[in-house]
Amino acid sequence: MFLIGERINGMYRDIAEAIRKEDPLVIQAWARRQADCGARYLDLNPGPATRDQVKTMRWLVKVTQEVCDLPLCLDSTDYDAIEAGLEICKQPAMINSVPAEWPKMERVFAMAKKYKAAVIGLAMNEQGISQDADTRVALALELVAAADSYSIPMEDLYIDPLVLPCNVAQHHGPEIMLTLRQIKLVADPAPRTIIGLSNISQGAKNRKLLERTFAAMAIANGLDAAVADVCDEELRKTIATARVLMNLEPYSDSYAEKYKKASSTAERRKIS
Amino acid sequence: MFLIGERINGMYRDIAEAIRKEDPLVIQAWARRQADCGARYLDLNPGPATRDQVKTMRWLVKVTQEVCDLPLCLDSTDYDAIEAGLEICKQPAMINSVPAEWPKMERVFAMAKKYKAAVIGLAMNEQGISQDADTRVALALELVAAADSYSIPMEDLYIDPLVLPCNVAQHHGPEIMLTLRQIKLVADPAPRTIIGLSNISQGAKNRKLLERTFAAMAIANGLDAAVADVCDEELRKTIATARVLMNLEPYSDSYAEKYKKASSTAERRKIS
Repeated sequence: MFLIGERINGMYRDIAEAIRKEDPLVIQAWARRQADCGARYLDLNPGPATRDQVKTMRWLVKVTQEVCDLPLCLDSTDYDAIEAGLEICKQPAMINSVPAEWPKMERVFAMAKKYKAAVIGLAMNEQGISQDADTRVALALELVAAADSYSIPMEDLYIDPLVLPCNVAQHHGPEIMLTLRQIKLVADPAPRTIIGLSNISQGAKNRKLLERTFAAMAIANGLDAAVADVCDEELRKTIATARVLMNLEPYSDSYAEKYKKASSTAERRKIS
Repeated sequence: MFLIGERINGMYRDIAEAIRKEDPLVIQAWARRQADCGARYLDLNPGPATRDQVKTMRWLVKVTQEVCDLPLCLDSTDYDAIEAGLEICKQPAMINSVPAEWPKMERVFAMAKKYKAAVIGLAMNEQGISQDADTRVALALELVAAADSYSIPMEDLYIDPLVLPCNVAQHHGPEIMLTLRQIKLVADPAPRTIIGLSNISQGAKNRKLLERTFAAMAIANGLDAAVADVCDEELRKTIATARVLMNLEPYSDSYAEKYKKASSTAERRKIS
């Protein structure tokens, strides 16, 4: 179970400003900081306000790779921007994301094959996000079949059941747990699972408490990855603990201290 | 999902001493404090060192009921002691516990029927605790059948899959999650599920972190109750959050503050 650093996203004001000014320093500081906090991938999202998605994505990939050798998760609904990023990625990347819709799946899975990229497949289609687990699982199966037809290995397909904010869509919570478990049954080998963790707490109070609790709950139902705030030390400790409790990592008395150390390194390099 | 206060147990030094001296004050202080922290039941356990289990259990029930009207969870392997307690309980109690063994089940379920008590049934028998979920579930089914033959309603049967310390029996963690889910499938209506939460962290570091993370994970797999340290505020906040995320309690911005308040009341009444 690993984390993808969510912070280089044009939805954040400092990133939006850095993109506008073509100032690489803020981007690079967040890249380093998230790497220090143990991110396995870095998400790069130009943000909806950025006009030239292609140019911006290419710039984000370039400046991030100048300071950090983590693989990248290219996050945009503009597939030309994704492809522009994939062309210059030094390591196999992840594409974030594709819904269970043609011809979007065609474009994305063909790119994934060409660039050996992993893909986040969203359990939604033209009808939007389903209320229940069954429909989400049916859409997961469509994603699996489509990926398979492009010879994408199941370990490179990450199904996102789509987490909604608990303050407005509370009934989705147990459906997400069910969906995570059922996705592991749709194919053998099974695809992987991923969530956008911050979505659960959008607009709610106690955001960090909601996020780390939901993370533990999802890991107990087979979650493989999350796009998340990797700089949240309590979240990292909770995830380390959940991994130990699910027997995914050997217990040692120092398992939680390891995560504290990662954080202190990050603190020392704090963004100026 | 509710908590049973674990603290009135002869395994703790202050309780053992209070029992030895027949001093009700420490017992009553812990009863009040755990009630303030939101315990739904109070566990009463004379402890293994207490010679006269019958007399001690009766005394514990008596002095606890003098200050607190919560229902009690009578915790002993001595069924005469349990019955002595049940005789004077003012409210329907819980019996903690019976394994899937005859004639123990006969004695306990007959008592439960007579005193309208709930029962914690342990998913173990003469062969001890199983390594896997399947055997635990088979034993749960034996408990269900036995309880049913005494007309114990399923809402009064709490199956305990038996949690072992993660530092020595780490592979049991995922099996517990699986067992919790499968217990809900063995009968309709299903029996309830319960765990002894502190067991997960016995002898480990980061005990509280392990306990609250495991609690969230178990709730996401259908856990109904836990014998736990109800005075741990972070645990209570995590459980409140998990309940919101599983749609068991309506979200409101103040859901976590409610739990803080309970704690401040407890602080004010701090044990002298």
